[in-house]
Amino acid sequence: MTAVRSIPTEQEILGWFESLSNWGRWGADDELGTLNLITPAKRLQAMALVREGLVVSCARTIGYEPAADNALPARHFMLASGEGEAPVDRGRAGSTDAFLLQPHGITMTHLDAPAHSHVRTDPSQPWTLYNGKPAKLVTASQGATVGSTELAGGGIVSRGVLLDIPAVRGVPWLEGSDPVFPDDLDAAEAAQGVRVEPGDVLFVRTGFPRRRAERGPRPQAEGISALQPACLPWLRERDVAVLGADTGNDVMPAQYPAIGLPVHGVGMGAMGLWILDNPDYEELAVTCARLRRWDFLVTIAPLKLANGTGSPVNPLAML
Amino acid sequence: MTAVRSIPTEQEILGWFESLSNWGRWGADDELGTLNLITPAKRLQAMALVREGLVVSCARTIGYEPAADNALPARHFMLASGEGEAPVDRGRAGSTDAFLLQPHGITMTHLDAPAHSHVRTDPSQPWTLYNGKPAKLVTASQGATVGSTELAGGGIVSRGVLLDIPAVRGVPWLEGSDPVFPDDLDAAEAAQGVRVEPGDVLFVRTGFPRRRAERGPRPQAEGISALQPACLPWLRERDVAVLGADTGNDVMPAQYPAIGLPVHGVGMGAMGLWILDNPDYEELAVTCARLRRWDFLVTIAPLKLANGTGSPVNPLAML
Amino acid sequence: MTAVRSIPTEQEILGWFESLSNWGRWGADDELGTLNLITPAKRLQAMALVREGLVVSCARTIGYEPAADNALPARHFMLASGEGEAPVDRGRAGSTDAFLLQPHGITMTHLDAPAHSHVRTDPSQPWTLYNGKPAKLVTASQGATVGSTELAGGGIVSRGVLLDIPAVRGVPWLEGSDPVFPDDLDAAEAAQGVRVEPGDVLFVRTGFPRRRAERGPRPQAEGISALQPACLPWLRERDVAVLGADTGNDVMPAQYPAIGLPVHGVGMGAMGLWILDNPDYEELAVTCARLRRWDFLVTIAPLKLANGTGSPVNPLAML
Amino acid sequence: MTAVRSIPTEQEILGWFESLSNWGRWGADDELGTLNLITPAKRLQAMALVREGLVVSCARTIGYEPAADNALPARHFMLASGEGEAPVDRGRAGSTDAFLLQPHGITMTHLDAPAHSHVRTDPSQPWTLYNGKPAKLVTASQGATVGSTELAGGGIVSRGVLLDIPAVRGVPWLEGSDPVFPDDLDAAEAAQGVRVEPGDVLFVRTGFPRRRAERGPRPQAEGISALQPACLPWLRERDVAVLGADTGNDVMPAQYPAIGLPVHGVGMGAMGLWILDNPDYEELAVTCARLRRWDFLVTIAPLKLANGTGSPVNPLAML
Repeated sequence: MTAVRSIPTEQEILGWFESLSNWGRWGADDELGTLNLITPAKRLQAMALVREGLVVSCARTIGYEPAADNALPARHFMLASGEGEAPVDRGRAGSTDAFLLQPHGITMTHLDAPAHSHVRTDPSQPWTLYNGKPAKLVTASQGATVGSTELAGGGIVSRGVLLDIPAVRGVPWLEGSDPVFPDDLDAAEAAQGVRVEPGDVLFVRTGFPRRRAERGPRPQAEGISALQPACLPWLRERDVAVLGADTGNDVMPAQYPAIGLPVHGVGMGAMGLWILDNPDYEELAVTCARLRRWDFLVTIAPLKLANGTGSPVNPLAML
Repeated sequence: MTAVRSIPTEQEILGWFESLSNWGRWGADDELGTLNLITPAKRLQAMALVREGLVVSCARTIGYEPAADNALPARHFMLASGEGEAPVDRGRAGSTDAFLLQPHGITMTHLDAPAHSHVRTDPSQPWTLYNGKPAKLVTASQGATVGSTELAGGGIVSRGVLLDIPAVRGVPWLEGSDPVFPDDLDAAEAAQGVRVEPGDVLFVRTGFPRRRAERGPRPQAEGISALQPACLPWLRERDVAVLGADTGNDVMPAQYPAIGLPVHGVGMGAMGLWILDNPDYEELAVTCARLRRWDFLVTIAPLKLANGTGSPVNPLAML
Repeated sequence: MTAVRSIPTEQEILGWFESLSNWGRWGADDELGTLNLITPAKRLQAMALVREGLVVSCARTIGYEPAADNALPARHFMLASGEGEAPVDRGRAGSTDAFLLQPHGITMTHLDAPAHSHVRTDPSQPWTLYNGKPAKLVTASQGATVGSTELAGGGIVSRGVLLDIPAVRGVPWLEGSDPVFPDDLDAAEAAQGVRVEPGDVLFVRTGFPRRRAERGPRPQAEGISALQPACLPWLRERDVAVLGADTGNDVMPAQYPAIGLPVHGVGMGAMGLWILDNPDYEELAVTCARLRRWDFLVTIAPLKLANGTGSPVNPLAML
Repeated sequence: MTAVRSIPTEQEILGWFESLSNWGRWGADDELGTLNLITPAKRLQAMALVREGLVVSCARTIGYEPAADNALPARHFMLASGEGEAPVDRGRAGSTDAFLLQPHGITMTHLDAPAHSHVRTDPSQPWTLYNGKPAKLVTASQGATVGSTELAGGGIVSRGVLLDIPAVRGVPWLEGSDPVFPDDLDAAEAAQGVRVEPGDVLFVRTGFPRRRAERGPRPQAEGISALQPACLPWLRERDVAVLGADTGNDVMPAQYPAIGLPVHGVGMGAMGLWILDNPDYEELAVTCARLRRWDFLVTIAPLKLANGTGSPVNPLAML
């Protein structure tokens, strides 16, 4: 990993908003972006990867305790419990509950909807979502009247590929804000004997969930590893459909403060790329290593949350 | 459909808590119940059913408006919208939101966790979940410390079968509290040329979502169609893994008020059956009819909600 | 009540935004508006009105059931109940709960903060709060960074006056969208032998809570009685500090759709008037009639909800 | 403060559940407890204490940021903001919001309802609230069907007395879990020239809010100052109506772990005492010192939260 790595300048990244753009590629009104790359044929190819009948969940548990990396945790409220007196004296009684979920952030496994990212490169212009939809249509009172998570409500089913960066680098996990570069992706492909292809769901392991399990929560301010924006041309060239590093998917602290989060910006806003935040690939990485193969069938089934800017999900990998 | 139908008495149903029981079948500590029936071989068999590469979602949209059949709807709160001033002047800004979700009831597509159903047949004994777990361990302060939705967090992947009852009966949907009887299930199997087998996910269409789309919401008090409890021995004999009629899965108004909801009671509590409430099979039924086959791959991926008594889900059928 | 009543035109009301304005009256930076009218001397005068030692609450109960006039009710979640096992075997254990409260609307007794009303009369200009604060500082992510309910967190304590309109008109309550006119206010003053003075908290009874108790909830669409905007000059002339009719304080259906809610608009935005929505004066009206006096001490103590646009309150009248 | 202080044993405190009890004092069905001590005459006496026309709020601000002493903060959700496009082009538009409030704990200023404390001294008996109401009537599904905060919905208005313990001890605040003893209360009375009388609202200042402002939040585990349970006979003898130390009102870490929180237990459960948690007396203490008097009129107006175990409040002191 001693290759000279080109760190893009802010100006370069601003240029990618145009040069890597998929605006218009699937029509002037398209909202699906890179999900267009997942065809029935692609799905059938993905199905053929299931040989053992194994299913591995890639979601983290949703807990309710505040932590350094979870300042505003989900809340769980019981509406009826097993402690009380049942309305009947035999037969069946029941418990019910309610959940307050705030999917975005660096903790809950969730899929970002297009409405989550507003972009612009010219301050004299209004902010837009992917393919030019006005960002102001994502309103405080109505939510995402464009670019909602419902767009993926039909389900995402495709070939998944796991690139295990710490394994290639020979470390248990990537520390702090250590970024993943394109040559990391290339090296993982070479070491694992796999190649990312159009329409794939790309899982990139940094090992953060293992680090958290062993070392405890890490505040966002102490750094988050993710793909360095230098990977954006690589993602565009390979025509990845969904990107999911096992963190918040943008390096923290922000390296390009003037333009916010470049992977979310260029990726979602210009390329129409779908992003999966905060998954957990620890069990999947062990399974892939054991079977010595790193591609599989993936399903991601976001809740059909009307006008939502994202959805908690439980992605499943099948091998 | 003029066959003489045996309507079970309350006493018979109480007997089924024992005679149809799966307690101990998969060990004294088992909590998975009928999910044990889904083996890797079963999953591989299910994968082979995907021939077109089609994916059909079986979830309803989660909206936020109160309705006759949705008195306490989900709530959606925006935490940042596209209307405001972005923290950067170009690059990327974003919207975020929060959701209050109350999965149980007759509206939201959700998977019941074992903790949702407490059963007993002897009033001198404490209430229990499936396989004898004490119901009082589902507490107001901690939630489902047993029988949580996390049990299915690894994902449910199996063969799915849709039995389209209105199609067999020649009606657009089942009205009011019109129940589905075992001979309806048999007739649908015969008409569709399909047979429900051990480990299957059984989808039973009553057509309620179509009725709602055309006629508007229907209050719970006006009646809900579902499997008549007479189907319980059938479900047990066939070793169904997951039951999902496209309603609340127990006929309303309650026909056996002294014992609450028999399908949830005997099914979940005695048989360890998993129940999928309020899915939507309208698109799936059309697709199955077009392809002239009614079995497919199914994935159900509940959120890993710690100590939850259920989870909203978006079940996917793949053909 | 057969006096000729002048119904103001939309154009007149737009003019009142300027002619009735209190902008600048208490300084260029003032946010307190009409609360400036409540001086220590005013409070001492109000204290002297307490002769019986009686306290009457003017708040409605906050319930959790949806109703025709309460589509999105408060929600109540228990976090620990008395049904469970206590952590100690003697001594003390406890119950706790959480509440989801959405104060605005036509149901919950609440005090509007200045941030709740944005006004403008020239579409080429930005929207502002009272005294020219930019409305855009009330943001989706931060809430009311100006004009928050905290402004009244110190408590509102002044003389209260109840004008009982149905009593003067000889009816049990005002029906539908029947408005209150300035001559109603004058007639009530005359009949009751009381006069509204600067700094007063003005309670106007329409009797809606009694109607609701006897006839059930009434949807907003079926009409809400309140002060006709024609009362605005009267309120300004009298220098009322807080206006609280026992409804939503603007006649519904909106009579001036092009300008929204005129009482909230001219009152809050131009005059800096504080508005108390949805109180209940039924017990107070009976008490006043019995004691034959209609002025008293009032306290309104909004919660210090940071950046809130309003607060649920329990106003107390003391006689 | 070198007097020998008698620290009660656990056994003594268990005895106080009986010897200090007010059960039956105001009738077999009474739920109001010490609020019975506040008579119209008492209120009139309290009114006479207002001489300056000053109002001082004793509530803390409700913020939304997690902190060491606020793990599950309130949440604030905007439903409409000033950033968006208004539905009208001139006149009035508006912002609205929602709040998730969890009153109990050591942060939010709130009044405990009787339902918040369940007591028993004989493990063979069921838990009860004050005056023997069954604790199991506080249910997970219905909340406080007895002992609700609605009991005080009519408002608490009485004479308040502030005893400023740090001032008497010559320190800025009480540190850690430093308890307040009966001789502290006596010493403060003597130094301030005031005496606590039946029906009074007793405010006890430890200075925690000042400490927090200067030193930052302090986790519950690091200690909370409050009245040592040794003060319970003093409170009973003086017939205090409401107790409000400016903390959680029981010393932490729990000194009597076998019996939980003794002040809440004996106070609320046996005496029917109402407790005000987490107020802020910093401004009030300065005002009292300046005016050289420590009694005043107090109003506490809990929200009428149906079946609530407590309510956020903004207590007002008037001098």
